[in-house]
Amino acid sequence: MIDLNESRPLPLYESVYRQLREEISTGQRKAGEKLPSKRTLASQLGISINTVETAYRQLESEGYVEARERSGFYVLPLSVLKQGTVRELQPDYVQHCPKPEIDFAVGAVDEALFPMGIWQRLTRASLNTAGILNRSEAQGDAGLRLEIARYLARARGVHCDPEQILLGPGTDYLMQVLSGLLPECCTFAVENPAYHKAYLHFSRMGHQVLPAKMDGKGVLIEPLEELDNIVVYTAPSHQYPLGFAMPMGRRTALLSWCSRGSFRYVIEDDYDSEFRYDARPLPSLQSIDHLDRVVYLGTMSGVISPSLRISYMILPPALLSSLRKQPVPYSCGISTLSQFTLREFMAQGYFEKHLNRMRVCYKNRRRELEELLRPYEKTLRVIGAQAGSYLLVQIKNGAGERTLCDTALEKGVGVYPISPYFIAEIPPEYRNTVLLGFGNLTSGQMRRGVALLAEAWNL
Amino acid sequence: MIDLNESRPLPLYESVYRQLREEISTGQRKAGEKLPSKRTLASQLGISINTVETAYRQLESEGYVEARERSGFYVLPLSVLKQGTVRELQPDYVQHCPKPEIDFAVGAVDEALFPMGIWQRLTRASLNTAGILNRSEAQGDAGLRLEIARYLARARGVHCDPEQILLGPGTDYLMQVLSGLLPECCTFAVENPAYHKAYLHFSRMGHQVLPAKMDGKGVLIEPLEELDNIVVYTAPSHQYPLGFAMPMGRRTALLSWCSRGSFRYVIEDDYDSEFRYDARPLPSLQSIDHLDRVVYLGTMSGVISPSLRISYMILPPALLSSLRKQPVPYSCGISTLSQFTLREFMAQGYFEKHLNRMRVCYKNRRRELEELLRPYEKTLRVIGAQAGSYLLVQIKNGAGERTLCDTALEKGVGVYPISPYFIAEIPPEYRNTVLLGFGNLTSGQMRRGVALLAEAWNL
Repeated sequence: MIDLNESRPLPLYESVYRQLREEISTGQRKAGEKLPSKRTLASQLGISINTVETAYRQLESEGYVEARERSGFYVLPLSVLKQGTVRELQPDYVQHCPKPEIDFAVGAVDEALFPMGIWQRLTRASLNTAGILNRSEAQGDAGLRLEIARYLARARGVHCDPEQILLGPGTDYLMQVLSGLLPECCTFAVENPAYHKAYLHFSRMGHQVLPAKMDGKGVLIEPLEELDNIVVYTAPSHQYPLGFAMPMGRRTALLSWCSRGSFRYVIEDDYDSEFRYDARPLPSLQSIDHLDRVVYLGTMSGVISPSLRISYMILPPALLSSLRKQPVPYSCGISTLSQFTLREFMAQGYFEKHLNRMRVCYKNRRRELEELLRPYEKTLRVIGAQAGSYLLVQIKNGAGERTLCDTALEKGVGVYPISPYFIAEIPPEYRNTVLLGFGNLTSGQMRRGVALLAEAWNL
Repeated sequence: MIDLNESRPLPLYESVYRQLREEISTGQRKAGEKLPSKRTLASQLGISINTVETAYRQLESEGYVEARERSGFYVLPLSVLKQGTVRELQPDYVQHCPKPEIDFAVGAVDEALFPMGIWQRLTRASLNTAGILNRSEAQGDAGLRLEIARYLARARGVHCDPEQILLGPGTDYLMQVLSGLLPECCTFAVENPAYHKAYLHFSRMGHQVLPAKMDGKGVLIEPLEELDNIVVYTAPSHQYPLGFAMPMGRRTALLSWCSRGSFRYVIEDDYDSEFRYDARPLPSLQSIDHLDRVVYLGTMSGVISPSLRISYMILPPALLSSLRKQPVPYSCGISTLSQFTLREFMAQGYFEKHLNRMRVCYKNRRRELEELLRPYEKTLRVIGAQAGSYLLVQIKNGAGERTLCDTALEKGVGVYPISPYFIAEIPPEYRNTVLLGFGNLTSGQMRRGVALLAEAWNL
């Protein structure tokens, strides 16, 4: 119960009520027993009848006693009342999955790289900013959206009004929102493989989803030629998880395909585009889209931290106006503190500094990991290394991905299967492929991890 | 563009690339113009041919130039490239709705009451806590869920395992999730009036929604008797927005109705239950539910701040296991920092202290507002004042709610219509009813606000 003592003295009726409730709960007063008449109890305790009345009514309202016409108050069987209690967590509950000793987790971010001191200072400052206890604008803090628009213009050639930007607590959330903006009749053509939750979200919202045919350059246009009311989901700067970039030719072909249909859109998921090493990242599809047919998706998860829960989506004007027409107004669902802090982090230039620092570090780690794997070239092939925070490796020891992951885990090493990313059946050439993330591993850990993998897979 | 200077010197190819891009963008090099041969430029600049090659390829990959077989590189028309730019926000955009001078906003929280010093300290501490950069457990931080379970057990008699608790960035989000867990075939019977977004979310997810018949005690059971596969949405501790509490008799009747059907659930929205003044809040429906048919919904918006974006939902075991079977795993979408900070705020006892302080303050404000309104009793009736952070007033000057709100706003006072809360047509007796929130108003503001309302409405 809430202890009211601290803020004001306990009212008389309250102590009477509490004492009687105690006696009923502990069974000192049995079900069916009649409580003393209000007059009797009042004179016994030397308090007013009204006070007793209030206490009895409180007990009644909480189901401890019932009032019987012209008779008085009677204790009810306790069974109708369930005392609030908390069952403690099962010890095995808190950590669902035991972490491997060395975890090549995909999407893990290196805490050591994070400029915590700066972030703490900006957080403190944000807590002192006016409006910190108000909700941000529905689509997200206007200032933060402006910073994101400026950053994307510089880094990705993106051209948008911050009013087109929706912030959300994760890309999944934004994909659900997007899915709700598109007509039921439209079909999603999803890269195969792809971020598999995209596929699940779209179909969950009642849309037809089909795997898009692909070659080494990305989605093939021809098979889509006859279709309309169609949305293509693609990750052109960094095919997920294969890692290659869609060349400019295919990009322009995709956009001109859009122009030939009445309702054709492209969802550009720009995840991991920040980490491209051999040359500057290609400008985004959105940046060369004259027809406003591209929806642009990005996230702060890989760049800052997955724990921040901030992603963004840029809607072309047509979809923005359908958003505005939705019966349930959009709400970005991100704490104002997180938004203010990130806004300042970007506005004061720390964001791009941090990004460059990470890029350099990841580039070195990737090279290091590649070098650690080189001795095993005969039985191990690395793909998709030109970008991103993970590698794909194919093992030619006859084992499939499941065995590869299990045998690795027996040695205490976490590597991850590729099959979940395939919407249709997994092509034979990928059956022996696993993902190795290097975002949060030291040189020592990578060295030890590779050595253990060599044992596990007898490389 | 990302400025790489800070972390490493600009590569040669980069400066060549940038200079040529500049010349193309500014039109110094026209479309169709041939770039100098790699050899020529290399010798002009005294750099290697490979460096020029890299720069040219970069320009090609970004669509500035094209390579023609055995001829060289040619400038492409700029039109195919859209430079990334940010259109500045329209000045009228940032604040959508002009705030009235005195705003009786519903759900506004008084920043002055918020223990910012404590919150700042706990935030700093949380930023130094291990795992701050990791995502929390999918349903939300286990420790925070335990604190919430303990608080709800004490304050609301709630009986649950923290594993039944889902955290989410808002009640709306959780209602969507819940809606997705229930079979398509089931119908929602929603209190009329009610929190209108509930109604919209349920119907948006493809469910049939009908307004539940009500009397002064809450939802009427008889009309539901014949129905099955039905979910009742109610706010028993504080009917929203009418403000009355469902008496114990109706609560038990509702639960026994559940027991008579194969698929009957009740969604208990406990919004504003924390603010009940005349007596302790009634224990929740969930606390007297032996059949696990109650879904319990609560939020930190009114108690701490809407800017925190933390709400919670307690699922009965059956629905919890359907959640676990969902193709898309649940993700709570709340920053780890917010969760850790709130966890400590609760664990260290500040939460209930703060709540008690707010309760006392709101109780006084409510009394004050009622007294300010008393002189106008002849033309103004106050209802729903026994709980919550707002009052309902009915004005007998012949005007409808629209006129009442507009005339008030002309005087610079914000009051809010009740009709949006009605799912079916609004009953005649409520046509002249508006909401006055007092959560974030000083005595002076309330006094001035009421005076202005008296003028606006000629009371």
